[in-house]
Amino acid sequence: MTNAHKKTVLVIGGGAVGAVAVLNLQVGGLADVTIVLRSNFSAVNATGYDFESGDHGSVTGFKPSVIRNTIPDIIKESIPSYDYILLSTKNIPDVPPTVIDLVSPALPSENTHTTLVLLQNGLNIEKPFLNSHPTTPVLSGVSLIGSAELTPGQIVQDEPDKLFIGAFSNPNLSEPATQDRAREFVAMYSAAGKTQCVYSPNVLHDRWKKLVYNACLNPICAITGLDTGRIRLADEAIEGLVKPAMREIVAAAKAAAGVDLDDGIVQWTVDMDPLESYLKPSMQQDLEKGNFIEFENLLGEPLREGRKVGVFMPTLQVLYQLAKAVQWRNMERKGMVDIPKKK
Amino acid sequence: MTNAHKKTVLVIGGGAVGAVAVLNLQVGGLADVTIVLRSNFSAVNATGYDFESGDHGSVTGFKPSVIRNTIPDIIKESIPSYDYILLSTKNIPDVPPTVIDLVSPALPSENTHTTLVLLQNGLNIEKPFLNSHPTTPVLSGVSLIGSAELTPGQIVQDEPDKLFIGAFSNPNLSEPATQDRAREFVAMYSAAGKTQCVYSPNVLHDRWKKLVYNACLNPICAITGLDTGRIRLADEAIEGLVKPAMREIVAAAKAAAGVDLDDGIVQWTVDMDPLESYLKPSMQQDLEKGNFIEFENLLGEPLREGRKVGVFMPTLQVLYQLAKAVQWRNMERKGMVDIPKKK
Repeated sequence: MTNAHKKTVLVIGGGAVGAVAVLNLQVGGLADVTIVLRSNFSAVNATGYDFESGDHGSVTGFKPSVIRNTIPDIIKESIPSYDYILLSTKNIPDVPPTVIDLVSPALPSENTHTTLVLLQNGLNIEKPFLNSHPTTPVLSGVSLIGSAELTPGQIVQDEPDKLFIGAFSNPNLSEPATQDRAREFVAMYSAAGKTQCVYSPNVLHDRWKKLVYNACLNPICAITGLDTGRIRLADEAIEGLVKPAMREIVAAAKAAAGVDLDDGIVQWTVDMDPLESYLKPSMQQDLEKGNFIEFENLLGEPLREGRKVGVFMPTLQVLYQLAKAVQWRNMERKGMVDIPKKK
Repeated sequence: MTNAHKKTVLVIGGGAVGAVAVLNLQVGGLADVTIVLRSNFSAVNATGYDFESGDHGSVTGFKPSVIRNTIPDIIKESIPSYDYILLSTKNIPDVPPTVIDLVSPALPSENTHTTLVLLQNGLNIEKPFLNSHPTTPVLSGVSLIGSAELTPGQIVQDEPDKLFIGAFSNPNLSEPATQDRAREFVAMYSAAGKTQCVYSPNVLHDRWKKLVYNACLNPICAITGLDTGRIRLADEAIEGLVKPAMREIVAAAKAAAGVDLDDGIVQWTVDMDPLESYLKPSMQQDLEKGNFIEFENLLGEPLREGRKVGVFMPTLQVLYQLAKAVQWRNMERKGMVDIPKKK
């Protein structure tokens, strides 16, 4: 009974995505997991997580090995560098703190030991770390099925998940070495034999493919207040709005990243969520809760990438500007913007 | 003290717009006014309207001559044809009843006597009457300043108004004769010497000019939840979203209707509402109250007119589709749409 062969993993962000990751890692037995929680810290610290999961079934009172409500400051607290840091918070670069500020106490700038895993959506999320942490290997995690936290610590994941892990490219590092870390992470995550976690060499393909949903249905559902079932029932919303947006992503993927998405990806993505489940994409959930929305990485980055190489993206441009205005409204409501007094 | 020289006017719709019209017409003394009210009938019938008006000052307990809560059926009720019917309801052709169904009991199809005045926004609102009431003269009323009904019967109109009255063209009627009716209506409306009401020969110019605001700021404010003050403060919303939409209207006005809007109309319209008043356009007010929005005449018609003659209108196309989806959401919430049960 020794932990000598176990890897240490710090999971930052224990909402629906992070909680499922911790469950897989800990049940697999190859990782010692420390989790950092914020809004659900007291609930999970007291009674653990409850899961209703397509992969794990019903699990009640599950507790990660170590539960914290602060990011470990590894120097001040004399903690050895973690083998992996898994970032599963929302990524909202337009609202402080940045993910870099968030992770830095646990990840010194000159780090080479710790592998950072970004279990977050959107494009170019690794780019800021190339400057702040140029020698840190960074992995990409793309999950195909959403999960939701109904109340603090109560996680529901209706369908079996599939997680794609790959290495973000970094000119300062050996690509094979980073790929080895990706494979090691896959082995660790898969050891539980539950969630299907696979090594995927084509990170950009995985990310652009998911953007067909995330850059389009996410903001459209958020802005209209219609879930992915209702948007398919609402007159011409799919043909007049959703599909034109999706086609812009398909064109940008090819032109900006050389990513050829399958014929039929647009219809496949429209039909992805079961109609009669009336699922709300994460951005719609966030907006309804008054939370900030992840529109810069989901929508702004693919838009900028596409336009940079001349792809015409009028639908996403309007959706982006509307999302930006909605984000400003959220900031004002939270007192982060000063405006002149009403006369 | 005889009413022999007075014209009979039926005003349908006694919200903020209709109430101000009734006040002008009745104070002027040249009209006998009957008003048809719906949601504010009992309030106004009991204690009259209260106004805080830039044109009329404070007026309390004002009552139109006749207050009804049904459209007069002039045949069944043996009422002589009205000289004028002023329609000041919302105009929402995508939600029944249509304005034609609404007005028909008071306006027989073969009418020639009654002049219909459409004190409503948007484009092509006279077109349906060409079929249903081919011999009825129809006038256009475009008001430059918005007013609001704070609670039933409480009308606020901060700034002096300016009302443009003109004749819609109708191939079945003599244009000079319809223009004479427009001038007569202006005289009647102006007799109070309060609101500035002028005869305007170029109806299309008036309507396209107002669309620079109504097709753009109206849906953008409604969709983002930001009023016309806040939208000017929110990062790049004006440059990235509002002005591109407005430029599409300017281009469509010229190409579709030969209407040359002034240089500077875009900036002028952006600056029209005082920033620090934080005014909500009507569509935003309607959406916040859970009411249907007037997006077809304000946004759909100029879009269709522009596209018919090849104007490229990508911003308004996306705004139109979003507004349509939002309208569908309202319909579903009001139980007007059946959707499959959630599984």
